Amino acid sequence: MIDYRRMGALLAGRREGYCLPQALYNDADAFDFDMEAVFGTSWLMAGFTCELPEPGSYLAQMVGKWPILIVRDRKGEIRAFHNSCRHRGSLICKPGSGTSPKIMCPYHRWTYDLEGGLFAATRMGPDFDKSLHGLRQIHIECVAGAMFVCFAETPPPFADFANKLESYLGPQRMDKAKLAFESTISEDANWKLVMENGRECYHCATGHPELARTFPVGMSKHFDVADDERAQTFLDTMKASELETDAIEGDWWQLARFALNRNVETLSMDGHHIVKKLMCEANGGYVGSMRLAVDPHCFVHATADHVFMFSAMPVSPTETHVTGKWYVHQDAIEGVDYNVDDLAELWTRTNLQDKELAENNQLGVNSPGYLPGPYSPDAETLAQRFTDWYCNTARNFIAGRAAMDATVHVD
Amino acid sequence: MIDYRRMGALLAGRREGYCLPQALYNDADAFDFDMEAVFGTSWLMAGFTCELPEPGSYLAQMVGKWPILIVRDRKGEIRAFHNSCRHRGSLICKPGSGTSPKIMCPYHRWTYDLEGGLFAATRMGPDFDKSLHGLRQIHIECVAGAMFVCFAETPPPFADFANKLESYLGPQRMDKAKLAFESTISEDANWKLVMENGRECYHCATGHPELARTFPVGMSKHFDVADDERAQTFLDTMKASELETDAIEGDWWQLARFALNRNVETLSMDGHHIVKKLMCEANGGYVGSMRLAVDPHCFVHATADHVFMFSAMPVSPTETHVTGKWYVHQDAIEGVDYNVDDLAELWTRTNLQDKELAENNQLGVNSPGYLPGPYSPDAETLAQRFTDWYCNTARNFIAGRAAMDATVHVD
Amino acid sequence: MIDYRRMGALLAGRREGYCLPQALYNDADAFDFDMEAVFGTSWLMAGFTCELPEPGSYLAQMVGKWPILIVRDRKGEIRAFHNSCRHRGSLICKPGSGTSPKIMCPYHRWTYDLEGGLFAATRMGPDFDKSLHGLRQIHIECVAGAMFVCFAETPPPFADFANKLESYLGPQRMDKAKLAFESTISEDANWKLVMENGRECYHCATGHPELARTFPVGMSKHFDVADDERAQTFLDTMKASELETDAIEGDWWQLARFALNRNVETLSMDGHHIVKKLMCEANGGYVGSMRLAVDPHCFVHATADHVFMFSAMPVSPTETHVTGKWYVHQDAIEGVDYNVDDLAELWTRTNLQDKELAENNQLGVNSPGYLPGPYSPDAETLAQRFTDWYCNTARNFIAGRAAMDATVHVD
Repeated sequence: MIDYRRMGALLAGRREGYCLPQALYNDADAFDFDMEAVFGTSWLMAGFTCELPEPGSYLAQMVGKWPILIVRDRKGEIRAFHNSCRHRGSLICKPGSGTSPKIMCPYHRWTYDLEGGLFAATRMGPDFDKSLHGLRQIHIECVAGAMFVCFAETPPPFADFANKLESYLGPQRMDKAKLAFESTISEDANWKLVMENGRECYHCATGHPELARTFPVGMSKHFDVADDERAQTFLDTMKASELETDAIEGDWWQLARFALNRNVETLSMDGHHIVKKLMCEANGGYVGSMRLAVDPHCFVHATADHVFMFSAMPVSPTETHVTGKWYVHQDAIEGVDYNVDDLAELWTRTNLQDKELAENNQLGVNSPGYLPGPYSPDAETLAQRFTDWYCNTARNFIAGRAAMDATVHVD
Repeated sequence: MIDYRRMGALLAGRREGYCLPQALYNDADAFDFDMEAVFGTSWLMAGFTCELPEPGSYLAQMVGKWPILIVRDRKGEIRAFHNSCRHRGSLICKPGSGTSPKIMCPYHRWTYDLEGGLFAATRMGPDFDKSLHGLRQIHIECVAGAMFVCFAETPPPFADFANKLESYLGPQRMDKAKLAFESTISEDANWKLVMENGRECYHCATGHPELARTFPVGMSKHFDVADDERAQTFLDTMKASELETDAIEGDWWQLARFALNRNVETLSMDGHHIVKKLMCEANGGYVGSMRLAVDPHCFVHATADHVFMFSAMPVSPTETHVTGKWYVHQDAIEGVDYNVDDLAELWTRTNLQDKELAENNQLGVNSPGYLPGPYSPDAETLAQRFTDWYCNTARNFIAGRAAMDATVHVD
Repeated sequence: MIDYRRMGALLAGRREGYCLPQALYNDADAFDFDMEAVFGTSWLMAGFTCELPEPGSYLAQMVGKWPILIVRDRKGEIRAFHNSCRHRGSLICKPGSGTSPKIMCPYHRWTYDLEGGLFAATRMGPDFDKSLHGLRQIHIECVAGAMFVCFAETPPPFADFANKLESYLGPQRMDKAKLAFESTISEDANWKLVMENGRECYHCATGHPELARTFPVGMSKHFDVADDERAQTFLDTMKASELETDAIEGDWWQLARFALNRNVETLSMDGHHIVKKLMCEANGGYVGSMRLAVDPHCFVHATADHVFMFSAMPVSPTETHVTGKWYVHQDAIEGVDYNVDDLAELWTRTNLQDKELAENNQLGVNSPGYLPGPYSPDAETLAQRFTDWYCNTARNFIAGRAAMDATVHVD
C-alpha cells in the first residue's frame, strides 16, 4: 500500500537543480510508486520491428517484473499483450523470441491466435465463453521501425514524437535491420541512478577512456555546438545530405544528430566502422551519431554502421537490469561484414564501467550524511532534465489520483 | 503488522470459481497473514510415527520458518514441541532425526526430558524454577501411523477425520513401515500456486509425461469414476478385498482409492512395483492408489508397494519448500527389495516439472495484466476446492479475531 | 516509516532479567529503529590510529550500510567524514585504506582536501560556492590510539571513558602498533543475538573448546575474581607492574584486566605468545588480558603480544557482519616474529563457532513458540547488561523524540 501523501512530500522536498532526496533512491515504497506512476504511465521503447520478421514472430520480455509479449499478427501488424494466461495467470512465453502460428500457454494448453483471441481451451465446460478470455492488450506504436509500448489506459500523446522520430530515424532504414547481439547485466543501484549516469558525460573523460576516444565527452547541454567550428561544419554537411540534425525535445524524449570526435566514423573502440555493410550510406558513412533518448529508461545511438539501444529496467529499489541491443544491416554477414565481439566491445566495457559507478553512487546515497547535491549546469543538463521529468511525472500522477478521488467522492 | 481489513477486502474480491486476486499470491503482508491464519490454525501432516521407532527418537523439521520437534517419550507416546530453547530461544535440534535419552540444547546445555520438562540447567541461581521452563508443546495426533500437528490453542475437530483415515490407511500397515528416502526442493512461487498445481491434473498430460503413464490424468472431479467400466470394476474388487474406496471428504481433507492406468501396479516409471516386499498385499498388490489430501499443504499416495508424501512449506511470499518422503515396508531391504533411485524417480521428475510450472505461474501472476481466471469445472475441481477452503479458513480467522476484539471491548 | 509507539510498546514488554521480545530480533522496522536509535547515537569503535600512519592516510569502512571515511589531515589530526560525495552522493573511497594527498571522488573528480573542504570541482559554473560543499564531518575521538566515531549531533559524554581507557590501554603502546590481519564474516542473525553471544561465556566450555584452553570460561559476572586465589595473586602482580586491573564500567563501556588460565601467556591455540616482539613487556609478558567492551558493537582483548578487536555491524534484521582485526607491535616482522595463520587461528575458529550458535539462536527465536527466557545471574551478567543498555538507549531515544516533538508543538 503506497502512501501517496508521503511520496508527494518527498517530491515536494526536491530542490531545483539538485539530485533527489535519499528515499527516492532506496525506499521500497518509492520503488513501488515509481513502477506505478512512471513505468505504468510512460511510453517505453521495446526494440525494433525487425526483431519480428514475419507473421507469428513473437518477442517476450520483462518490464521490471512485468512480462510482456509482442507478436506480429496474421496481417503483419505488431501487437503487444500482457504475457499472462487468462486461465490461471501463467507466463505464456519465457523471455526470448521465436515464431509460432498460435500462442499456446504450456501450462494447460490454452491457445490464443496471433490477434490475442482465445482459440482453444479444453475441458472448460459448456458455459465457458472464450470471447471473454482473450489476451489483454497493451498499447503499442511503431515508428520508423522502433516499437513503443505503454501500460496506461490512456497513453501520453505520441503523434508529435512519431513525426519527429520518423524524420530523424528514417534514414537509418531500420526496416532493413537485424538484431546482431543482446546482453543484460544487473546493477545494484536504483534505476534513477542508472539513468542519471546514462544522461550525462561529466564522468566520461575519466570513467570511460574507450568511449572518450570517439564520443565528444566534453559536450555541453543537449549536444550544444556553441562555437565549435568543426561541429558546426559537420551539421551543415548533414543538412546537405538531408539528415536531420537539430537538437530537439518533447516532454519525454530528445533527438539530435551530433558530430563524433575528429576523424571518427562510428562509436567503436578505434573509431572505424565495425560493420562493413552500412545502414546509412549518406555522406560516405560519416554521419556522426543520431541520438534518441526516451524517459524513463532508454537511449539509442544510431551511427552509419550500427544502432545501439540501452534500456534500464527496475527490479528492486536498489537493483536494475540493463539490456543492450546491437542492430546491423540485415544483409551484413556475421564473420564477414562484422563480428559480434568487436561490435559489442565498446558499450559492453562502458556499461560495466557505469555499473561500478552506479553501484558506488547507491552505496554513498545510502549514507545518513547524504545530501542531494547540485548538477553541473554545463555537463549535467540532461541528467537534471531527467530528474525534472521524473518529478513532474510523479507529481502529475499524484495530482491525477487526487482529482479522480475527488470525483468519486462527489458521485 | 498485518492489516486484517485489507486482507478481508482482498478475500471479499475473490470471484467464485476463479483463482485468487494477485496480492494473495505475492504480497508480503498476505504471506504473514497466511502463516498466522492458515498454517497457524490448521492440522498439518508431519510424517509417520515409524520415523520415531523408539523412546528417545526425535524428528526436527520446519513449518515454513517455524521449527518444531517431535519426540517419542519414555512411555512411547509421541509429543510435539516448539523447537526453541526456553533459555534464550535457540534452536535445540537442527532439522533431521536421531535418538537421544534427553533433549539437550547445544548452546548452554539446558537439558529437557523426553516429556519436555526442564531436567537440568547449570548456573541459573537458587531462585530459578525449572518447572516454569519446560518446552512448549504443540498439539499432535497420530492415526494409522500418520502424525498431524497443530499450532492453534484450540485445533479444528479431528475425530471424524481420524475414524475415516483409520479405515482408509489402516490396511497400509504404516506401523510396519520405514522412511526410505526424503528430499526437499525450493520453488520460487507462492505456496498456494504450488498447492493449486498439486491439486489438479489438467496439466498432467503434457506437463508430466512420465506420471501420465500410470496415473489417470484425465480423471474428473474428485476421482469420479462416472461411466468408466474398468474403474468401476476395480472399485468392486477393492470392496471385495475390504479396502475402502469411496471418494469422501471433510472440511480440510479428502480420501479416495482410485484405479491406476490399465495394467499398472503402482505409481512408478514403468507401472511395475518398485519394492518387492509389499506394504498392502490385498488383491495380489493390485490396489490402485489410496490418496489422502490435507489442506493446506499435503497429499499422500499409498500404493501396494510404497507411500509417497508431498508437503509444501511456505518460506516467503514467492518461495516454497517442497518435501517428498518415500516410505516402504520396514522389512524391505535396500539394494535387494528396492533401490532408492528407482523408488524416487517418478515423483522427483514430477516435482521438478511442477517447480517450473509453478515458477512460471508466479511470474505471470505478477503481471499488472493478471486477472484471476476460471477453473475447469471438470479438471480443476480440487484446485478450486483448495482455494475455496483457503478463502473460508482465512475469512473465519478474520471473523474470529473481530469477535474476540468485540468481546474484549465489552469487558 | 518507523512506528515509534510500537517500538516503545515492544520495549515496554521486555521483562527484567530476560532476553528480548521476538520482534526486536527479527522485525524490519525494529532493525531500522536500531540503526537510528542505537547506532546513530552511540560512540562506535573504528579501529586504531596506527592504521593511519601519516598525513593523507585514510580508512574507509561501513557502519552497517553507512559508509564512513577516516582521514589523517595535513596537521596529523584524525578526522571522520560521511563517505558520500557532496555532488551526487557517490561513495568516494571504497572500503579499505590507503594514502592520498587529496580525497578525490572518482565519479566526477570532485576533490576534497584532507580537512574535508571542497578543493576543486570542474564545470560547476560561476555561481557555485565550493565552501558550501565540503565533506560532512562526524565526531571522532582518539584515546590511547583507539578511535571512536559518533553519528549523533550531540554525542554521549566521552571524557570519563577517555581517562579510564588511557590508564588501561596506555601500557599497550598502540601508537607503536600495526594492523597485521583483518577479516569479515557474515552471520545470519540479528546483531543483538551476535552481541549477546559475544558478551557471555556460559556457552564457551562446550561451544569453544580451543578458546577454553586459555580463557577463563567459568568466570562469574564482570570478571569477578571472588575467592580465586590464583586470580587474586595475578591482580596483585599486575598492580605491582602498575597495570590497571579493576573491573570498571560506564554506561556504554567496560574495562578490566583478568588472569588467563594457569600457565597461559596469551589468547592463542596453545597459550604461548604468538608474536615474539611484545607490545606490553611488563611482568615478562604475563599480563593476562585487558578487555575493553563498547556497546553496542565491540570488544577488544589486549594481551602482551597482540590485540584482537571484534566489531559487529548490522546489515539486515537477520544479518550481521563481524569484523576481526589483529594488531601487533609495529616492529614485529611477519614470517619472523609471527605468522598470520597462527595469529588469527583462535579467534577465527571462535568466530565461526559463534556464527553457528547465533544463527541457530535466530532460527529458534523466529519460532511462534519463542518466549524470552531468563539470563543466568552468574554466567550471563554481561549479556543482560548489554540488553539492559540497549533497552535504556532505545527508550531514551524515544523519550527524546517525544520531548522534541512537544517542544516543536509549543513553538
